Amino acid sequence: MSSDSTASVIIIGNEILSGRTQDSNLAFIGKHLDLLGIRLVEARIIPDVEQIIIDTVNTFRNTYNYVFTTGGIGPTHDDITAQSIAKAFGVQLERNPDAVVRLKKYYDPGRINEARLKMADIPAGAVLIDNPISGAPGFQVENVFVMAGVPAIMQLMFESIEDRLTGSAPILTASVATNLGESAIAEDLGKLQQAYPDINIGSYPYFKKGKLGVNVVMRTTDSERLNELRGQVCKMVLRSGGKVLDEHT
Amino acid sequence: MSSDSTASVIIIGNEILSGRTQDSNLAFIGKHLDLLGIRLVEARIIPDVEQIIIDTVNTFRNTYNYVFTTGGIGPTHDDITAQSIAKAFGVQLERNPDAVVRLKKYYDPGRINEARLKMADIPAGAVLIDNPISGAPGFQVENVFVMAGVPAIMQLMFESIEDRLTGSAPILTASVATNLGESAIAEDLGKLQQAYPDINIGSYPYFKKGKLGVNVVMRTTDSERLNELRGQVCKMVLRSGGKVLDEHT
Repeated sequence: MSSDSTASVIIIGNEILSGRTQDSNLAFIGKHLDLLGIRLVEARIIPDVEQIIIDTVNTFRNTYNYVFTTGGIGPTHDDITAQSIAKAFGVQLERNPDAVVRLKKYYDPGRINEARLKMADIPAGAVLIDNPISGAPGFQVENVFVMAGVPAIMQLMFESIEDRLTGSAPILTASVATNLGESAIAEDLGKLQQAYPDINIGSYPYFKKGKLGVNVVMRTTDSERLNELRGQVCKMVLRSGGKVLDEHT
Repeated sequence: MSSDSTASVIIIGNEILSGRTQDSNLAFIGKHLDLLGIRLVEARIIPDVEQIIIDTVNTFRNTYNYVFTTGGIGPTHDDITAQSIAKAFGVQLERNPDAVVRLKKYYDPGRINEARLKMADIPAGAVLIDNPISGAPGFQVENVFVMAGVPAIMQLMFESIEDRLTGSAPILTASVATNLGESAIAEDLGKLQQAYPDINIGSYPYFKKGKLGVNVVMRTTDSERLNELRGQVCKMVLRSGGKVLDEHT
């Protein structure tokens, strides 16, 4: 599996590292990038610490085609993503007039305060990202897309920027679930991987209701080869004395 | 908030990056480290690529007191964590006699095969980590703990190594939930953060049933100061015209 278009995700927030909040943004972004033909290569979960944000953004934006961040763009003292991104790019943090208009539209007249206006402080030269839920926009600086941490908001933000992203051919996935353990199919699966070097074959054990099983997942851009391999994996499972519990592309 | 004992997590697996599998191991490890007084500073989610695993392990083991990895220790071709860890430490991957005994105990006589025995190939000098579910052990090399990716197995592995870990004072958490938006409390909360510089105050907006609200989370090792601040936050919410929906320590 190869793809020319690569991406990375930076999840910013102490609450994810403390285990208090279960992140779900990464899986959402990963799935959507797959459909766009963009390969998510790496994700990092980092604390609300300015220098760590700056360093991670600078490493990623020079390594991958796209960088997506979530979290830390609200109005409170621990929301330091916007100022950190400005520093990473060496630009000023400015009160963005368009963002001010959006916030004023969202809040009732007279309810706009300095804390709310802080959310209009955006790195110079950034392009805004719509927030249909709570007004305060995300923003894009070059190849870095800065989004909210609240999943409902992040998802709408991501969908609104999809047309700014350029992918390669979409990555197609097929899967075969079996009641066999991994070690029962490991040798044959290794041979299939050798026979289909153009397809990424993953083997993911699961443990449900006291029983172990395996999902074999195949990923490639070529639908014909994918269907062929899926058939081979099913045959292999049956030959090894197992059942195919589920299969789909 | 300060802590002398630091940790990092490496989640290894293409299936997490593709969004196919929702990771839950990070939150589990984060919560348990909190109780042990070990601060989780950073987590990375990386693909099943040997050089990336080696580089990440070597960066983390020289930076943090503890490194925890999940995923990639099964019997299939895409399970390359053990060989990568051996290379990161510059030691041989060896068939571990104790691991062979454990695998033979788990599998019925005669059902042990080469793929299963591959799970006994462990870096030289490693200390094994129990796997009560499927036999194949995890292992520890110096400050790096290598665990399974399947959550049920990972959780038992983690619990079995907790007595190998040394923490500082446990980090205590208090939280106050309110129906106010973040920007209604941002200014006062910033002042409270200045008044309590020893306590980490986080503000986490949520969006549920069409309504926005905020969880204010306070973290420190000092229970007396924590309770005092929690009271201050409740007063601040009421003063700002909001309701305290929930509070606890």
